[in-house]
Amino acid sequence: MSQQGTGRPSPTIGRWSRRGVLGAAGVGALGAGAGVVAGRAGASADGGGAGELTYAFRGAHQAGVVTPVQEHLHFAAYDLVEGATREDLIALLQEWTAAAERLTRGQPVTEDGAVGGPLLAPPDDTGETLDLGAHGLTVTFGFGPSLFTGELGRRLGLTDRRPAALNRLPLFAFDLLEEPISDGDLCLQVCAEDPHVAVHAIRNLTRIAFGTAMIRWSQIGFGRTAATTRSQSTPRNLFGFKDGTANVMSDETEALERWVWVPDDAEPAWMAGGTYLVTRKIMMTIENWDRVSLDEQQKIMGRDKKEGAPLSGGGEFTEPDFTHVGADGEPLIPLDSHVRLSHPDANKGQRMLRRSYNFVDGNNPLGQLSAGLFFISFQRDPQQFIDIQNSLKADTLNEYIRHVGSALFAVPGGIRPGEWVGQFLFD
Amino acid sequence: MSQQGTGRPSPTIGRWSRRGVLGAAGVGALGAGAGVVAGRAGASADGGGAGELTYAFRGAHQAGVVTPVQEHLHFAAYDLVEGATREDLIALLQEWTAAAERLTRGQPVTEDGAVGGPLLAPPDDTGETLDLGAHGLTVTFGFGPSLFTGELGRRLGLTDRRPAALNRLPLFAFDLLEEPISDGDLCLQVCAEDPHVAVHAIRNLTRIAFGTAMIRWSQIGFGRTAATTRSQSTPRNLFGFKDGTANVMSDETEALERWVWVPDDAEPAWMAGGTYLVTRKIMMTIENWDRVSLDEQQKIMGRDKKEGAPLSGGGEFTEPDFTHVGADGEPLIPLDSHVRLSHPDANKGQRMLRRSYNFVDGNNPLGQLSAGLFFISFQRDPQQFIDIQNSLKADTLNEYIRHVGSALFAVPGGIRPGEWVGQFLFD
Ligand code: HEM
Ligand code: HEM
Repeated sequence: MSQQGTGRPSPTIGRWSRRGVLGAAGVGALGAGAGVVAGRAGASADGGGAGELTYAFRGAHQAGVVTPVQEHLHFAAYDLVEGATREDLIALLQEWTAAAERLTRGQPVTEDGAVGGPLLAPPDDTGETLDLGAHGLTVTFGFGPSLFTGELGRRLGLTDRRPAALNRLPLFAFDLLEEPISDGDLCLQVCAEDPHVAVHAIRNLTRIAFGTAMIRWSQIGFGRTAATTRSQSTPRNLFGFKDGTANVMSDETEALERWVWVPDDAEPAWMAGGTYLVTRKIMMTIENWDRVSLDEQQKIMGRDKKEGAPLSGGGEFTEPDFTHVGADGEPLIPLDSHVRLSHPDANKGQRMLRRSYNFVDGNNPLGQLSAGLFFISFQRDPQQFIDIQNSLKADTLNEYIRHVGSALFAVPGGIRPGEWVGQFLFD
Repeated sequence: MSQQGTGRPSPTIGRWSRRGVLGAAGVGALGAGAGVVAGRAGASADGGGAGELTYAFRGAHQAGVVTPVQEHLHFAAYDLVEGATREDLIALLQEWTAAAERLTRGQPVTEDGAVGGPLLAPPDDTGETLDLGAHGLTVTFGFGPSLFTGELGRRLGLTDRRPAALNRLPLFAFDLLEEPISDGDLCLQVCAEDPHVAVHAIRNLTRIAFGTAMIRWSQIGFGRTAATTRSQSTPRNLFGFKDGTANVMSDETEALERWVWVPDDAEPAWMAGGTYLVTRKIMMTIENWDRVSLDEQQKIMGRDKKEGAPLSGGGEFTEPDFTHVGADGEPLIPLDSHVRLSHPDANKGQRMLRRSYNFVDGNNPLGQLSAGLFFISFQRDPQQFIDIQNSLKADTLNEYIRHVGSALFAVPGGIRPGEWVGQFLFD
């Protein structure tokens, strides 16, 4: 298993002062941090190739949503430690903002970095990416429902700032959730073209959180299973099918406004330009799936395996025709197929932006792959996900998958020059 | 945790006939399989870039030893199932040879592959790499001591074919081995530039083994921590140090003969051109290491963090001078430093070829990274590893690491045209 947690932890295992380490380079740097780095302009110590790819950290929306999906994911959910205060949380978000901005430029978390500080102190940065560039790193921040509710919400003074839509996801049919790998007060979605770069970011941001927040669960993923731009070819998931064909793409401006971004006049105001992030850890019973005939596999998905074309005919990007019937009078796209049930036609027209990753955590004691899909979707309202997931109740795919992790986070709007993430939550 | 096993499994969870699936395309293809594909000549469905990189499957030595280290690893150890016979093992090795050769060319495991077979049967290949090339895939085969000993060795008729050097590794000082992730009857080391391609190979080769062998444990690794050719820059491990500087390189012909390859006149003859593969799963207590001062980190390793130069001076590739002392009269490279203790000078001149990977299995219940080094080394005689590991007893590094998995495999010589792996073991 890839991750575990035991509920809300207490900070008893030694205190490493993140204040001391980040000091001036942390919050202080924010005022000056107005430079928006974009495209392939970032610095790269190895001087070449994919390492130089950088994405803008600041803008109207957070990065890592419509950004072309990178190859590697390290996702971490955090819980605040017992006793963490509103001031602690604010300081953490400020320091995370400063460090994440540097990381997305391909720089170490502080100016001193891994080797530039005093010889007799622990380095600010852990150093394993010293010779690597940004590799398209993005860091996306989210807030879980538990941050606003109960005793914690009161302590933080956030009880009345909770968006009405931000609740724990309901328990769905067939859910077999494991508590330690569900939910969380905060989350970081880190994506990069290089796995070292992604892991380094989570490691160093976790280190900065020491004393305020601890990892509750985390997930490593590889091989994106979606495209968010038309120049990315559609990748495949571990069932061998193209996944992401009918995604909301970054150039569908209207669809993004309608289905992904929270509008500017929304309630609460701090969510303007934000979105809601759903994660579902979905185990695949790979060995069972591999014994299913090609015909049956295709009928379960509603698309053909080779091209990803709907079974009603055409090519990968032809719209499915759910009315087509075969010689036997049965619909060519079966009634209980995944594509029919997840399609807007079955869901009051609703769509979402999917940005999932494959995972392989190793194998279980039977020698079977512990593998599946770490499903991530972004939507303007969690209800979109809830409706579609409810519609999937009838999905034959359920025989071959098991949802074991579940979480919902509110992703606040973009971080503009001089701001820190979630700042308006505390106004 | 990334992997588990419960000793020797029995084939009770449904039998999928690998014979049926591979049939003619398996052993039959071997006679014809004489083409040595090398360099960037392989086929790639996505038509471009790194996907096209292929390495020769056949030759004097197996691939995956001196091959330039790829970015991704999926290593699997297998146990034969209860009742598997000599004939079963031979058939498996023949089918693995045929399938692995196709995979290293960027092809599916059989000609029918993922979508070319009968619609009403499970596809031969699981299909998730349909649009990907070989991405530099190599498959390296090994045999564990347990294949030759006890009741299994007798049943297979292999008792007297065991190389004298092939024994379970001894228990070393500080070893905290977990049985389920140590040892194994067989192993496959799969490396590729793309994680999907590596996972796909293990998955499909495991499927072929169904009914004869099952995964005992497996490990996913990323970000090579060694170079085997001078054109590869030295990567860093999760302690942030360059790792692999003083490796045996693929152009050191003499050193390879002396330290890596089993000579042609060796006993037993089936090991001619082979080597011995050690794996050690080494957990790193990352959070503790990150609190150590730069000075202390460098003294523990015996090299500087930025350049990887020995503390006695010079650049990365300057030979360490162990006689140099500082102003305080102490050796600049401390007596208990890793580089001093692992250096040939401390080990009767012995060397080894290291080919390790980083791993991150997620995090533990304390929120700490479950991460470390999946150490892999190749040597002509396991004694080289044993001597160096014993020398590391005094290593200060031991305070920050924990060896939890251990295995030794005999890697038979190269597979020449028309042969299958390990063929001479059964002569
Ligand atoms: C392991 C589980 C899953 C697998 C293997 C899977 C696979 C696929 C595949 C192959 C497609 C067709 C290609 C495409 O348009 O992307 C698809 C479409 C889709 N899936 Fe899934 N999916 C899974 C889980 C989910 C979940 C949990 C949801 C949301 C609740 C979901 C929502 C969708 C949607 C909205 C579409 C597009 C439908 C359309 O507009 O045509 N999927 N999925
Ligand atoms: C997590 C554990 C380990 C870490 C972090 C580590 C790290 C390093 C580093 C940074 C170097 C210096 C650069 C280089 O020449 O590669 C090195 C060298 C070396 N290490 Fe390790 N190592 C570990 C475990 C081992 C083990 C288990 C062995 C073998 C028993 C080993 C054998 C060697 C050898 C032979 C050298 C080269 C020494 C020389 O010729 O200068 N290491 N290691």
